[in-house]
Amino acid sequence: MSPDNNFTKPLSVVLIGSGNVSTHLGKALEKSGNNILQVYSKTSQAAKLLAAKLKSTFTTNLKELNPNADLYILSVKDDAIDSVLSQIKINNGIIIHTSGSVDMAVFENKFKRYGVFYPLQTFSKTKKVNFKNIPICLEANNSNVYEQLYVLANQISTKIHDIDSNQRKKLHLAAVFACNFSNYMYTISDAILTQNGIDTELLRPLIIETANKIKNNSPREMQTGPAKRHDLKIIENHLKLLESFPEYHSIYQILSKSILREYS
Amino acid sequence: MSPDNNFTKPLSVVLIGSGNVSTHLGKALEKSGNNILQVYSKTSQAAKLLAAKLKSTFTTNLKELNPNADLYILSVKDDAIDSVLSQIKINNGIIIHTSGSVDMAVFENKFKRYGVFYPLQTFSKTKKVNFKNIPICLEANNSNVYEQLYVLANQISTKIHDIDSNQRKKLHLAAVFACNFSNYMYTISDAILTQNGIDTELLRPLIIETANKIKNNSPREMQTGPAKRHDLKIIENHLKLLESFPEYHSIYQILSKSILREYS
Repeated sequence: MSPDNNFTKPLSVVLIGSGNVSTHLGKALEKSGNNILQVYSKTSQAAKLLAAKLKSTFTTNLKELNPNADLYILSVKDDAIDSVLSQIKINNGIIIHTSGSVDMAVFENKFKRYGVFYPLQTFSKTKKVNFKNIPICLEANNSNVYEQLYVLANQISTKIHDIDSNQRKKLHLAAVFACNFSNYMYTISDAILTQNGIDTELLRPLIIETANKIKNNSPREMQTGPAKRHDLKIIENHLKLLESFPEYHSIYQILSKSILREYS
Repeated sequence: MSPDNNFTKPLSVVLIGSGNVSTHLGKALEKSGNNILQVYSKTSQAAKLLAAKLKSTFTTNLKELNPNADLYILSVKDDAIDSVLSQIKINNGIIIHTSGSVDMAVFENKFKRYGVFYPLQTFSKTKKVNFKNIPICLEANNSNVYEQLYVLANQISTKIHDIDSNQRKKLHLAAVFACNFSNYMYTISDAILTQNGIDTELLRPLIIETANKIKNNSPREMQTGPAKRHDLKIIENHLKLLESFPEYHSIYQILSKSILREYS
């Protein structure tokens, strides 16, 4: 990248969507010197709230989008992307989405300069996020757009990866297991503890250690527990304890069976 | 606890079993000034190896156990506990097991002073463990034994909990979800990435953040992902991607259904 690259100047950015990704990404981009020009959300309360945080204007009408921004970041529900794209008109700016599962081709024949900017992290509105270590997966429709997205990503993160649409879908699928499903395991665990009057704090160190262990080891090698040890007696006792919770019972059963097979 | 309590002097300890718990607990107890007298394991190589680490003697014959130690720590497979207990004779020492799932009653009518010392952590031989923050769950057959176990636990950890056999079983069940099953989610995620030529390191920050998030928040509030958002289109696409992996397909399906219901 040459230092006189257009994208090294502060960018004017329009955020389409006001969910967790828009909120955190908008803040990070503003903090690194860019100008959030406008926030769109279909509900005026959400649009207003985020716009206030980012010192930008807001709209609930896609026809009122400023057409002259440098960059449009589309972070809406995947189901809504097609409908949103059919309603917006922009001039020379780049348009990107932040979804793990939507093909870049969604922009084809509708825009000239486009790409994908997928931050690989789980965002909650209530928890602060440091982008520095969040991998950002980039894809673009040409090398010039890619370079410009790279400069932008580089302002907020040190981990930038070139990932195409096909790989991104697999990555997103893997992230559902690694993040969404592991969090759900914590939820079930908390439910069992709470039902039995046991402080949920007791298991927090175990949860953190389990995650930290795989920083330098493969999870396959780190597996422990009754199913890994083929301790069928414990598995049977646990299933008995879960008899009045058919949903947790089925989950315990299918996961234990799978681990038993994996380590047979 | 009075300062002249017997247990404030270094203890002579016999370890029965040479697995991960024996190894890490033995090291921690030795480091805090106790004397590991003897290690028993059914395989001589394992007994020898651990004894060398702990500067103790070893045996593969339960009849050769030193009967005069202060403390006997039984860390063998749950299935083996009954058989081991029927073969050992001790004098005045305390005998404890370290299992999450075995009732303290296993010692009843066989020993005078007994209890349970359950460290709530996942141990792997290859990874160092700092006991300081590991919750230790204690149970004893009388208050004198309880106090003595408390003094011992206090030498290695700052988090000591009074947990009876019934609660301990529920705690262990919850730990299987929180630790063993969440680790298995990481394994599946790694498998999907590897199959698609994607660096597994990419998801490590996400995994760590997912675990860290619940230090100060309930996992129920922290849930994200397609099932939480009721994004059925993504769920359907993911299930299609998993068609050639029937096991992962079933797991994805059952967990998504459960999350959909939980957040309906």
